[in-house]
Amino acid sequence: MPETIPAAAQRLLDEPNFAHVVTLMADGTPQTTPVWIDRDGDVAVFNTAKGRVKHENLVRDPRVALSVLSPDNPYVYLQVRGRAEFVDEGAREHIDKLSNKYLGKAYPSLQPGEQRVIVRVVAEDVDFHGGR
Amino acid sequence: MPETIPAAAQRLLDEPNFAHVVTLMADGTPQTTPVWIDRDGDVAVFNTAKGRVKHENLVRDPRVALSVLSPDNPYVYLQVRGRAEFVDEGAREHIDKLSNKYLGKAYPSLQPGEQRVIVRVVAEDVDFHGGR
Repeated sequence: MPETIPAAAQRLLDEPNFAHVVTLMADGTPQTTPVWIDRDGDVAVFNTAKGRVKHENLVRDPRVALSVLSPDNPYVYLQVRGRAEFVDEGAREHIDKLSNKYLGKAYPSLQPGEQRVIVRVVAEDVDFHGGR
Repeated sequence: MPETIPAAAQRLLDEPNFAHVVTLMADGTPQTTPVWIDRDGDVAVFNTAKGRVKHENLVRDPRVALSVLSPDNPYVYLQVRGRAEFVDEGAREHIDKLSNKYLGKAYPSLQPGEQRVIVRVVAEDVDFHGGR
């Protein structure tokens, strides 16, 4: 049974906070990068471009983790471990949605031929800390 | 040759920013948590308690990654991949130093019998983004 993001934690994904996403290199070494984050209901989703290290790592090994904390109170934070699922459909529109959320305008950095992809973080373990 | 944190990125570690640290579970699954961060010269260091998941993971597999971004400009960020080295000496004083940096007071959460440990992130790969 996949776990879900609790309602109290969904706010963290709705606000323009950065999530730190972890993928695994070919030798199993973890790699982490900040990403724009969104949710589809109670599933965290982000958007990347095919061929990037993150995407190549997840195609090889779908295990993924992310953490995001509240800028108002860093002791409010969400950690998710799960598996990546890819969605091509709507990925181009989705990066514009995210760009509007974070930059207030359509995505300005699309490269020629770039193929965007939505990554769904299907959670296996969810840990939400509501503050101290 | 270990890599070092460039001078321009050291500010990120000196300010009271949270780093997101990644360790690996026994099955290789990545796990990420926000931590208080510090540096010893050009090496990023953090502090944890023996027996915690992070510590147990790093004892089993020292591969570690961290990322930290500027709250003023999230496109200024530092990513490090490396190996953890443990330092017991001074670890109790070090958590107070960190607590003073982040909370403005000595560490208030020490548990009876808790053994603190300094984790040095000896970098093998450093990536610093200076903004967009």
